[in-house]
Amino acid sequence: MFPPLFLVHTTPVPSYFMIICLRLITTASFLVQLISTIPLRVYNTSSSRSLHHNTTNCERYDVVLIYALPVTVVSAGDGKCRVEFPVEDGHLNGGGTLHGGFTATLVDCISTYALMTTGTGAPGVSVNINVSYLNAASPGEVIVVDAKTCKAGKRLAFLEVELSKKDGGRLVARGQHTKFIM
Amino acid sequence: MFPPLFLVHTTPVPSYFMIICLRLITTASFLVQLISTIPLRVYNTSSSRSLHHNTTNCERYDVVLIYALPVTVVSAGDGKCRVEFPVEDGHLNGGGTLHGGFTATLVDCISTYALMTTGTGAPGVSVNINVSYLNAASPGEVIVVDAKTCKAGKRLAFLEVELSKKDGGRLVARGQHTKFIM
Amino acid sequence: MFPPLFLVHTTPVPSYFMIICLRLITTASFLVQLISTIPLRVYNTSSSRSLHHNTTNCERYDVVLIYALPVTVVSAGDGKCRVEFPVEDGHLNGGGTLHGGFTATLVDCISTYALMTTGTGAPGVSVNINVSYLNAASPGEVIVVDAKTCKAGKRLAFLEVELSKKDGGRLVARGQHTKFIM
Amino acid sequence: MFPPLFLVHTTPVPSYFMIICLRLITTASFLVQLISTIPLRVYNTSSSRSLHHNTTNCERYDVVLIYALPVTVVSAGDGKCRVEFPVEDGHLNGGGTLHGGFTATLVDCISTYALMTTGTGAPGVSVNINVSYLNAASPGEVIVVDAKTCKAGKRLAFLEVELSKKDGGRLVARGQHTKFIM
Repeated sequence: MFPPLFLVHTTPVPSYFMIICLRLITTASFLVQLISTIPLRVYNTSSSRSLHHNTTNCERYDVVLIYALPVTVVSAGDGKCRVEFPVEDGHLNGGGTLHGGFTATLVDCISTYALMTTGTGAPGVSVNINVSYLNAASPGEVIVVDAKTCKAGKRLAFLEVELSKKDGGRLVARGQHTKFIM
Repeated sequence: MFPPLFLVHTTPVPSYFMIICLRLITTASFLVQLISTIPLRVYNTSSSRSLHHNTTNCERYDVVLIYALPVTVVSAGDGKCRVEFPVEDGHLNGGGTLHGGFTATLVDCISTYALMTTGTGAPGVSVNINVSYLNAASPGEVIVVDAKTCKAGKRLAFLEVELSKKDGGRLVARGQHTKFIM
Repeated sequence: MFPPLFLVHTTPVPSYFMIICLRLITTASFLVQLISTIPLRVYNTSSSRSLHHNTTNCERYDVVLIYALPVTVVSAGDGKCRVEFPVEDGHLNGGGTLHGGFTATLVDCISTYALMTTGTGAPGVSVNINVSYLNAASPGEVIVVDAKTCKAGKRLAFLEVELSKKDGGRLVARGQHTKFIM
Repeated sequence: MFPPLFLVHTTPVPSYFMIICLRLITTASFLVQLISTIPLRVYNTSSSRSLHHNTTNCERYDVVLIYALPVTVVSAGDGKCRVEFPVEDGHLNGGGTLHGGFTATLVDCISTYALMTTGTGAPGVSVNINVSYLNAASPGEVIVVDAKTCKAGKRLAFLEVELSKKDGGRLVARGQHTKFIM
């Protein structure tokens, strides 16, 4: 059964994505690093409490995008990755809008997933992240995160990310992410 | 009751910060909860549980710094803020080092706290965040986060943040944060 | 007679650009800030030597884009601006490729021209510039600089710039520019 | 001992500069070489014209910091470099203050000079430059540019630059520069 926290939109998504997605999970080539053993255990347990006890040794920061504040992968491949999520209370800053720290986390993670869909699959390490915040996003609005690989060189990768509102396309944030490939 | 995860060093901290900090925690105007039900179960305490119940209506992203991945405020005042935390599993990326998204969240939040200690107290909204990642940090290492206000103008504030290892002072990351004061 | 320092490519340029360009110079609505009185005098003198004597009091840094290292405006309007130039010796760094400081100057200036084609025409002041350098450019290669206004708000404008090689489209640099509108 | 590569201008604008400037404009050559032997030759020859003939094959963008808009090297060594210059007409933007493109050029160049004073001496290539503009600088004000090497690794170097007013120390701009060491 497909994890409920990681729902895939069926309508606008090309069928090959389902294949990719399955392949990713089964062959551990794409989001394996993200979901790794934790999600597998999640889906196999009825008690998330035991999960947390069981997976203490493999907890990671970016699992926030799976459990606490899940995003939906819309498409991935060819150096690109698109996810979306509705803004909820857990995403907010003190002003009641999408938190800049969560936005930066998305810029970091989703662009890394985009990079991992290129040939090598290596995530690399971050060298620099730059995020510009154009418009606020409020609870209930659905945000589309579009990441693409501008260049995946032998040593350096240059990625860009755009967050926009699904309804109307208004830009929320733009990010540049530079990674070093080891 | 003061959350045990958010211990404040008593010696170098101005007394007014204690008041601010208490006010922030008790009125839930400063920080709340990232991982919603997960931390409740993790901490499994009645005190933090009731806290979370009380603050359900103001859940926010940056409460990750209180509950899930707490930082210790070392000092705050005069446009500066210093916190520290030991790197744990929950902070990690796939490579087993401090996650760039969490680092960016710290750059965002701690510099905002620094700004809030200046005259106006207004947090503003983020215009731009830039983070450079100099060295990896591994589990067990204690990271010191130093934020300072370079300029708090009428409309724009310029902040900088430095993450370094408490043991040896090696730089982990440097950040620049620009905010618009409304 | 068209100014020799500001030559327009005749072949690949849409005819409407000639109109725009003439309009810009005659109505002083777009590049006025850049060329202002200096270019006018240029076009009225046969000796650029005397020009410089005459215009000592209104020299500006960005005139480098007119005199010393001229760029050709391909199109401008609707918050966008495209210029191009062949890489020459004067553009180079010690490694013999396009200098990062000149690239940053282009990111600053061309995005400002793009912003000036929006309604208000105000250039604003720079808050933040971020440039990523993807590929080197060598002498003889023609670089296309594409600037667009992502958001021109009441107080803040967000602009992006892409430098690519005319032959092949390979990205040279990407920039983000944030301006404060006074 | 003062580094032989960095000579200090003794008078505000040497008379040879006028000659160079005229020649630069008329021949559109405009730029030469900052470090190495060329500046030495400048100060050792009475004819800067012959100099320029001799160095035609190493024209570069960053010589703007020597000839057209010279900066004075105050100190250099141990991964640091400090220069200063008085703001003049040639540095200005349309608003009559220090141009952001020139500031970015300084961030690029002076941090590179700082890096070159570390062991290896390799200048590297720019990966990313980020500049925040805090305060405007007006003609007549003397600007101090302080660059330091935060980390000079095997593959990546992280540099920071601060521009401030000599009189009062008010910050003008702050920059982060990341370079790749080949």
